Amino acid sequence: MSTVYHTRRKRVIRHLKENGIEAALITSPSMIYYVTGFRSDPHERFLALLLDSRSEEETLFAPELDAQSAGEQGTVEAIVPVSDTENPYEKLRKKLGSSVASLAIEKNNVTVDKAESLQAVAPGVRFFNLTPFLEGMRMRKTSEEIAKVRLAIETIEKVMNHALTHVEAGMTELELTAELEYQMKRFGAEKPSFETIVLTGRRSALPHGVPENAKIEENDFLLIDMGVVVQGYCSDITRTFLMGEGTAEQEAIYEAVHAANLRGIEAARAGRTIASVDKAARDEIAARGYGPYFTHRVGHGFGMDIHEYPSLHGENRDLIETGLLFTVEPGIYVPEIGGVRIEDDLYIREDGTAEVLTSFTKHLIRLG
Amino acid sequence: MSTVYHTRRKRVIRHLKENGIEAALITSPSMIYYVTGFRSDPHERFLALLLDSRSEEETLFAPELDAQSAGEQGTVEAIVPVSDTENPYEKLRKKLGSSVASLAIEKNNVTVDKAESLQAVAPGVRFFNLTPFLEGMRMRKTSEEIAKVRLAIETIEKVMNHALTHVEAGMTELELTAELEYQMKRFGAEKPSFETIVLTGRRSALPHGVPENAKIEENDFLLIDMGVVVQGYCSDITRTFLMGEGTAEQEAIYEAVHAANLRGIEAARAGRTIASVDKAARDEIAARGYGPYFTHRVGHGFGMDIHEYPSLHGENRDLIETGLLFTVEPGIYVPEIGGVRIEDDLYIREDGTAEVLTSFTKHLIRLG
Repeated sequence: MSTVYHTRRKRVIRHLKENGIEAALITSPSMIYYVTGFRSDPHERFLALLLDSRSEEETLFAPELDAQSAGEQGTVEAIVPVSDTENPYEKLRKKLGSSVASLAIEKNNVTVDKAESLQAVAPGVRFFNLTPFLEGMRMRKTSEEIAKVRLAIETIEKVMNHALTHVEAGMTELELTAELEYQMKRFGAEKPSFETIVLTGRRSALPHGVPENAKIEENDFLLIDMGVVVQGYCSDITRTFLMGEGTAEQEAIYEAVHAANLRGIEAARAGRTIASVDKAARDEIAARGYGPYFTHRVGHGFGMDIHEYPSLHGENRDLIETGLLFTVEPGIYVPEIGGVRIEDDLYIREDGTAEVLTSFTKHLIRLG
Repeated sequence: MSTVYHTRRKRVIRHLKENGIEAALITSPSMIYYVTGFRSDPHERFLALLLDSRSEEETLFAPELDAQSAGEQGTVEAIVPVSDTENPYEKLRKKLGSSVASLAIEKNNVTVDKAESLQAVAPGVRFFNLTPFLEGMRMRKTSEEIAKVRLAIETIEKVMNHALTHVEAGMTELELTAELEYQMKRFGAEKPSFETIVLTGRRSALPHGVPENAKIEENDFLLIDMGVVVQGYCSDITRTFLMGEGTAEQEAIYEAVHAANLRGIEAARAGRTIASVDKAARDEIAARGYGPYFTHRVGHGFGMDIHEYPSLHGENRDLIETGLLFTVEPGIYVPEIGGVRIEDDLYIREDGTAEVLTSFTKHLIRLG
């Protein structure tokens, strides 16, 4: 297993060499996990992996408290422990040299004060952005990674099944949320992969709604959007149910979203543009007269983080590639009626076709 | 209620004027909440408050989806909605002018890529760090803020009480964690204020331990460190229990931590150094022979975030002031036996004395 991490670090070093950059400093915990196998949350403490393309040396700076587990879990041999009273930038300077002229950092992760601290120990340094290269690497998932995603999906689908048996009219959104998150842990999840969304009635049409003390009522939509983290990898699924019979229009809205979800999935094939997935789903909804009510992009990549590359919106002309993992989640939100969203997780296999990893039924389910 | 937000913004503008800085751009969601009353999580979308000390104009740039609630909840009149397809920095330039020479930003929040985007629309701009001023303001809590903290403490103490009736030997750390987080929501919390810590046996001595499938066993310590968010404010409490009788040494460790907690609380008075709180607790533990096993600072400020200013460590020579809100949480962690931590929340009142806001008993409780 350790070879995958070594390979990833070698690819970073090759990228540095090709671009004439002397070293890289990787500081986001999930990227450090991705290239070393060491997973931790350092909070405000200093955690950084230094990759030097001149010497090919690899050094992990870790909080003293975590140095031992970094050695055990990680695949980097040189670990420099940093205690709470030491200046990590001084320790870094000793390893990096103050004459370094080019350093690749994650510009979307390093804050201005930290960049200034780096500049203070390496006054002539110029920063390059390593984020696009790292995100590009992480975007293409290996089968080992997908195995973990499958576990996270299996777990969340058990929770979704539990929701069906547990929910009843009169319960509040917050009560159901608490029950679902309780079940996540019982089924072995580390934590929710984002804040669980349970919305009912007209509130299900709120673009940024969070669960409240609103009661789940007869003839309303019930929208559940949730996911869990298992072995460091996320799942993300949305299903929308109907409490009781509902109206013909609610059924028409549901079927429009269901059809759009299927069109989006059909469009997802290696070699086509990412935009075409968004367009396929959007055209279906527009054809059924609900165009103005589909107000967000059709999906997003995910993996260790719940939002990763690529972003599935109508302007993304990048091509779909093998190894991509992303959601397809069209929705229709009509303020006076409520909202429906149906979200699946897709993986683009070696042969270029999409495998739908989520298996929870998408037929309209009437509850209660 | 809106006047408190206006006053805070006026104080920022006065600070800018005193330091000859033309404008400030506040971008962290909790700081925006603190100075406007508008609370949101914009994820990757652009949310920023521009305060111009030249014109005294105040402008809130908010995601289009949130613009309406920003107008309703917030106290800033000029709201500029930014859609997903617009460039927020171009909109900012129109308001700020590209000739701006000095801009205060939160250097611990703004990432390098965002600073570069700012620099691109205002090429000659020099950045000043607004974080210390804002953190200093937020450090001193008003009675309205403390009222919310009291609610968060009341809620978490109900959960702690529930733990006493619910826990039994044989249950795992993760099962108890799930139950506690479920109760948090049932008692009305928005969410945990940090990842709930339930550690048992030797694992309670782990400095960065997270709950696992380890079983809670007879004669072991059970350490519970948790908190919730209510109305945007946090609580944070730790209690350690003994499963069954335990040993004389476990009792001695517990009493040492209990005494250190009381010494720390006694030392917390306006006008003394922050370091003296750490020292009072540490001396007590050292006098009882456990000095090397108290391996962290004695506490931290909190409020809307679980970690705020001040940091209560032995080198902090700042003076305790009225309005401060912080934890006092000494601990002893003996690898072969386990760990004990007792954590209270303190508020420094107008008269300079400390009020202990947490009221859960600190007498050693033997469970089961």
